[in-house]
Amino acid sequence: MNDIQEYSTRNLQRFIDELADLLRIPSVSTAPEHKSDVATCAEYIAQHIRAVGIKDVTVFQTDGHPIVFAEYKSSRVNAPTVLFYGHYDVQPVDPLNLWTNPPFEPTFREGKVFARGATDDKGQIFLHIKALESLLKVRGELPVNVKLLLEGEEEIGSIHLEEFIRSHQELLKCDTVLISDTPIYAPGVPSLVYGLRGLCYMEVTVTGPNRDLHSGSFGGAVANPVNVLCDMISKLKDRDGRILISGFYDDVIDLTVEERRDYSELPFDEDAYRKELDIPVTFGEVGYSTLERVSGRPTLDVNGIIGGFTGVGAKTVLPSVAKAKISMRLVPNQQSEDIALKFESYFRFIAPPSVKVEVVHHHGANPVLTPRDSMGMNAARAALEFAYGKKAVLTREGGSIPVCLLFDTILHAPTVLMGFGLSTENAHSPDEHFLLDNFEKGIVATAAFYEEMGKQSI
Amino acid sequence: MNDIQEYSTRNLQRFIDELADLLRIPSVSTAPEHKSDVATCAEYIAQHIRAVGIKDVTVFQTDGHPIVFAEYKSSRVNAPTVLFYGHYDVQPVDPLNLWTNPPFEPTFREGKVFARGATDDKGQIFLHIKALESLLKVRGELPVNVKLLLEGEEEIGSIHLEEFIRSHQELLKCDTVLISDTPIYAPGVPSLVYGLRGLCYMEVTVTGPNRDLHSGSFGGAVANPVNVLCDMISKLKDRDGRILISGFYDDVIDLTVEERRDYSELPFDEDAYRKELDIPVTFGEVGYSTLERVSGRPTLDVNGIIGGFTGVGAKTVLPSVAKAKISMRLVPNQQSEDIALKFESYFRFIAPPSVKVEVVHHHGANPVLTPRDSMGMNAARAALEFAYGKKAVLTREGGSIPVCLLFDTILHAPTVLMGFGLSTENAHSPDEHFLLDNFEKGIVATAAFYEEMGKQSI
Repeated sequence: MNDIQEYSTRNLQRFIDELADLLRIPSVSTAPEHKSDVATCAEYIAQHIRAVGIKDVTVFQTDGHPIVFAEYKSSRVNAPTVLFYGHYDVQPVDPLNLWTNPPFEPTFREGKVFARGATDDKGQIFLHIKALESLLKVRGELPVNVKLLLEGEEEIGSIHLEEFIRSHQELLKCDTVLISDTPIYAPGVPSLVYGLRGLCYMEVTVTGPNRDLHSGSFGGAVANPVNVLCDMISKLKDRDGRILISGFYDDVIDLTVEERRDYSELPFDEDAYRKELDIPVTFGEVGYSTLERVSGRPTLDVNGIIGGFTGVGAKTVLPSVAKAKISMRLVPNQQSEDIALKFESYFRFIAPPSVKVEVVHHHGANPVLTPRDSMGMNAARAALEFAYGKKAVLTREGGSIPVCLLFDTILHAPTVLMGFGLSTENAHSPDEHFLLDNFEKGIVATAAFYEEMGKQSI
Repeated sequence: MNDIQEYSTRNLQRFIDELADLLRIPSVSTAPEHKSDVATCAEYIAQHIRAVGIKDVTVFQTDGHPIVFAEYKSSRVNAPTVLFYGHYDVQPVDPLNLWTNPPFEPTFREGKVFARGATDDKGQIFLHIKALESLLKVRGELPVNVKLLLEGEEEIGSIHLEEFIRSHQELLKCDTVLISDTPIYAPGVPSLVYGLRGLCYMEVTVTGPNRDLHSGSFGGAVANPVNVLCDMISKLKDRDGRILISGFYDDVIDLTVEERRDYSELPFDEDAYRKELDIPVTFGEVGYSTLERVSGRPTLDVNGIIGGFTGVGAKTVLPSVAKAKISMRLVPNQQSEDIALKFESYFRFIAPPSVKVEVVHHHGANPVLTPRDSMGMNAARAALEFAYGKKAVLTREGGSIPVCLLFDTILHAPTVLMGFGLSTENAHSPDEHFLLDNFEKGIVATAAFYEEMGKQSI
């Protein structure tokens, strides 16, 4: 492996410059005006994969954004097949005014690259491509069969991916799925994630009078939809942070004694956490630690709310409509569709007779638990120990990677979640960035992973 | 008076065309980008007043928007002096997409003129100018001294008017103040308003983490400022519509038995009211009727709220900040400044330790009760009976006209609130309009008011 490491170190500056080119493409999948940028990004990545020596690359068009697929067949007999999954689309950039530099003009400070998509997930898919380049340039070939599946709709619920996987099961057939879209626990602490929370994302609309009214002429006799929406949202959780939706906790598997011990043994500085977020105190479900709350327990957050006059100055209006986007993070064995139904029936149940209520179910994802010791997990442990010089910790994550379930249920392949980001790298918010040290170690670890897998036969 | 009526009827179409010209000027006082339009509107009105024969017109500049002042001195000795007050600025137009026609392109349907400012207050100040034109053209002079005071900041709290009145007390000296910025009770039911609610307008900001966070990585352990703001707003009123701010009702004068009887005798169709607003049921403070709730009792409404991601699509963000504009309508003897302090201390009291809270006091106004039988009220009663052919009802209004208090406390002059709008004319909301029949009757009534005042000597 040292020769691989030497190659990637020698070429690191070029790798970083190439990453910057990728980060300049504003592939915001949720914004219609960026549709062509997402397509451009797909083509750019396909070209780059060919350039590093994997010639069999296809850009599949969908009714949404394209899916990039590449395949390398090893000359080794009985070599296992690894399917790498990642996404090249990114979150919206607003609030734009809070970015230190424009989100699509990568800038380098303090050993980090700042740009939308730097850590989620362009930086992580690109280090993977560079690991493959390193192996191919130094060894002349790869020790295993490799398939790359890169989608452009992860941030909007992977709308067309399930259909693609179902209709290309032979093409995607593999022994292990590798995903690099999770953070490592802390700088210098290599991690493997074995659990992910699910998601249920709802949008609600509360309508009062058929038009905005003068609050002086009508205020007092007509229910105000903003006041009503606030009352209803306040009824979703109690003061202990428990969610009040009927049946919400029915299918929740409690954390095991062993898991709670693992949580308690992870290095964690609550004060530093508070200070870094600049919050007076942490707050969450009573009876659980901060680490348990963000990954081992379900929760509910209002992601956005709007109603009435929100411009500069004062407008004495009694609004006609109020809207909120509300999402819930789920843990095994909660099911997204089931929670969506429970949310809607509860939300309608608490609605007063003075307003009309609409409930829309955006996208969702079921929670995931992956095996702790598959062939892939063992290879990943060894690879991370080589790259970081210490053993990896096993953790659960708060976010969702819905495709894990698809790979499990459709391809029947276990997933290895070997990520290189940090939870403090502002994924989904202004000044998103990626630590270049993890970019470099990630290349080495990924290359080592393939070498370890290469020792296996099927 | 019949000759005056005949003149205005003959010239009505021209009057309406001239009103349309005035309504085309987008004098939105709260919007910086419309500052020059507000100035243009002031000049337009000054010119028009000169054109009808009142030569002594001045446009006073302020640090905000201009104040138009005009004066006519009657040749009659001991003639009383009437000061007419109105405003030529208008509310913002959003939500623009809900307008049937562009808000500053007046259109005529069903005997109404549709445009921002049609009823609040351009239509009403313009009918006044046309009443003066009719008297001057037919009689050659006015029977009383007339002063016109037209401001451009009423919709933003008359920021510079108080200072102007204080520094021009001799200029503004009068025996009666006349204001046409209130609705008549119903079509064909002439009304004089003797009570107005006050206003206390606050803006609150709740701040959680120092940046927007990924709701998957942090959700569950960090208080969400939108959820918190909703919880706090839900604590401002109880389920019976009573406001929970400590001491809020301390200075409220209960409605008298006589007043409640007057309310009960006003023609009112609750079903028609509901249907017109398209609301399932009315809602307000338990123990009071709809008419009492909208004018005789204080209330609290959220005028606007915003936080997190409010664009199209879904963004899994835990927001950093949530804001709301909250205003309270006040009744005698509540004081706006006192209520602002009570609101702020209560709002801070209910804030959890997990967030930071900011409270800003926008503008306010104290409630008003005017004498029921001053010289001006008696003249107005006679004038309305002549114009509408029936006696006027005395009512209280839900909205605020802060300047009433200034005239009372600084000029020591009683106010007559003789308005010609309707509460259903969408003041402050899309498709604002003004009934042309009231425009015509208003001209006659206003001219008759001056003739009645002309019979008085001081």
